[in-house]
Amino acid sequence: MTRIDAVDLFLLQVPDFNTARDPVKDTLLVRVRAGQHEGWGECEAAPFVSLAAFLTPESHDTCRPVGASVLGMRLDDPMNIAEISRRVATNSMNVLQAPHVYSGVEMALWDALGKRLGEPVYRLLGYEKAFPKQPYVVAPFAPTPEETYLRTRDVVRAGYRAVKTGWSGFGNGEFTADRDQLAAARDGLGPEGRLFLDAARVWGNNVAAAKSYSHLLDQFGVEWVEEPFDATALGAYAEFSHYHGRKRLAAGENVNSVFQARQLLDVGDIGIIQIDCGRIGGIAAGKEVALYAERRGASFVNHTYTSHLALSASLHSYAGLERQGLCEYPIDHTALSWAICDDHLLMRGDGTIRVPEKPGLGIAIDGKSLQNYLVDLEIKFGSAVLYRTPFL
Amino acid sequence: MTRIDAVDLFLLQVPDFNTARDPVKDTLLVRVRAGQHEGWGECEAAPFVSLAAFLTPESHDTCRPVGASVLGMRLDDPMNIAEISRRVATNSMNVLQAPHVYSGVEMALWDALGKRLGEPVYRLLGYEKAFPKQPYVVAPFAPTPEETYLRTRDVVRAGYRAVKTGWSGFGNGEFTADRDQLAAARDGLGPEGRLFLDAARVWGNNVAAAKSYSHLLDQFGVEWVEEPFDATALGAYAEFSHYHGRKRLAAGENVNSVFQARQLLDVGDIGIIQIDCGRIGGIAAGKEVALYAERRGASFVNHTYTSHLALSASLHSYAGLERQGLCEYPIDHTALSWAICDDHLLMRGDGTIRVPEKPGLGIAIDGKSLQNYLVDLEIKFGSAVLYRTPFL
Repeated sequence: MTRIDAVDLFLLQVPDFNTARDPVKDTLLVRVRAGQHEGWGECEAAPFVSLAAFLTPESHDTCRPVGASVLGMRLDDPMNIAEISRRVATNSMNVLQAPHVYSGVEMALWDALGKRLGEPVYRLLGYEKAFPKQPYVVAPFAPTPEETYLRTRDVVRAGYRAVKTGWSGFGNGEFTADRDQLAAARDGLGPEGRLFLDAARVWGNNVAAAKSYSHLLDQFGVEWVEEPFDATALGAYAEFSHYHGRKRLAAGENVNSVFQARQLLDVGDIGIIQIDCGRIGGIAAGKEVALYAERRGASFVNHTYTSHLALSASLHSYAGLERQGLCEYPIDHTALSWAICDDHLLMRGDGTIRVPEKPGLGIAIDGKSLQNYLVDLEIKFGSAVLYRTPFL
Repeated sequence: MTRIDAVDLFLLQVPDFNTARDPVKDTLLVRVRAGQHEGWGECEAAPFVSLAAFLTPESHDTCRPVGASVLGMRLDDPMNIAEISRRVATNSMNVLQAPHVYSGVEMALWDALGKRLGEPVYRLLGYEKAFPKQPYVVAPFAPTPEETYLRTRDVVRAGYRAVKTGWSGFGNGEFTADRDQLAAARDGLGPEGRLFLDAARVWGNNVAAAKSYSHLLDQFGVEWVEEPFDATALGAYAEFSHYHGRKRLAAGENVNSVFQARQLLDVGDIGIIQIDCGRIGGIAAGKEVALYAERRGASFVNHTYTSHLALSASLHSYAGLERQGLCEYPIDHTALSWAICDDHLLMRGDGTIRVPEKPGLGIAIDGKSLQNYLVDLEIKFGSAVLYRTPFL
């Protein structure tokens, strides 16, 4: 019988980060030790707050520390992870931050369990085999259409055939400026490439504004538009879905529960759900949404702009679903997210990414590189030391 | 022009708390200083995690510390608070814990602004006058029906005419045991008293189980049943509402956004929405839900089991709504929550509670008592001190 002996959290931060240069300034890595095995996971957002949710002193009955539901539990079988997930959901129901930190913990549990059982995580999830995915790269609007053209062209020259553009400034200025930017992205990508647009919630709750862009999206062959509205504007999603086409409407990166994802699909009537396993509560939650989307005839794709450890975790969650053939793929070799992994999921000659077949998540951590980013953190609560950065 | 000069957080904890004896083990108080004025607020849940959300180092664009959206902002007008709330919602969108800490901060902003303008908060919210509310007291099932009878009778002897029972163990054992407990509560309360039942999510998603209790609730004149289902089981709420009666179904204490509250009303079709201003994002958010409920012909009631500072904040949010005449009322004089306030909203001869007419929230804090509970906390992040318990 294997027990979870230790869960260590490591807060990493880019030294002297620059807000403009470093979209990813920090991260929270999780190391689980269970018997002879070690697993790693990554939490996606607000690492310090997530760390606090893991180790907070006991509060109300429904505000217990996430750590208390994990430490000492069995880890011999996928059912053990399901049981831990239920404990966290109940005991930390009113720690709003809990799903974010548990996301990374759950990844690390799967990684450790996979190593213990000698199986890649996707097999433990019940998938027979892993299907390759086509990577799409995020290349937001540059300051000028000329630069957007060059940026997109560079992505194509690196071998990618699918690009997500938009975001920085999209929808906030002149319609003609957006048209020129989209035209530049399409030019850089070429007529055959798959083009997606991130609207970054620019229209809030305003369906008319979104509709006024529908024709432009047709003109430049934009396959789907992502997050045109606020996460809670489900009525706006449904109305625009009816107008622009359900299969051309994507959202989901910000959801932190299976329930919220289902609402986007059921009430918002979107056709593409984008899930970050580093936010939604882990790999099993991602899989649950993927299966739900399939049953509804919708598409599932990961949301990942952090490390290839998080990428691998997300890929495992829908690895066995052949119809779900796309993946969001982080390529920034200069980033903290790249540095912390020893292994990377590189694109193959056929233009696809493969889910690792090694036991667990199949991504080794670069301990030496971690040292360059590790924050020395100490929390004293009364006379007790609640947290001190552990040894790597 | 008044600016927000300082926002100080104080984490309080019952020394050597006992989980069974102390349902409220800790709390997070917020002190705002703006010019010559000082305001206080209270956050409801998981104080250490909420503190972390306030002062976390900058992370992704949507993961900024709550404090950065508040400090230095203007505080001359209610519109200034609305603007700060918008900033927090945008800049801390992906700090899941943000609504919990901002709830206490927003209360403190209203308290300080009320003092600056010499008005009680309800007037700043646009209410002409404050209507009295009938207090109901929470008296959960005791271990035996005999004790439940005595407990309820004691509440009646103290002058209260409305009681919420249930919770501890309700629905988890034999139907006959629940029947005996409910009978004992009704006996203790007398035939005229208003009786409510807290089901504490015991039926999860199981409408049939809830239906099997409907007749029992009739038998003992239970005015409404609270939280029969999980917060996300909106379909179960709607189905049971149709069966048992919309005006006899209450929920909402755990919601942390106006959106979630509206979903309970619109999709769950409940008739009573229970809002904790210490969780939903503050007093203005509570008011928004109260007005929305009125428009739908539903009832609004506060959820409060912390201090009378939090009680006052919640009362101000619906003070001017005459039709909303009930309030949840904490009475435990031995608790941390009681000790930290110098003023308490005591029941008057006519059996009602009055919203304070003093400027701000109208509740003074007992600084000396606070010292008995104040946790000495220090957070070092790299070479910086991120937090050290401030002077009171």
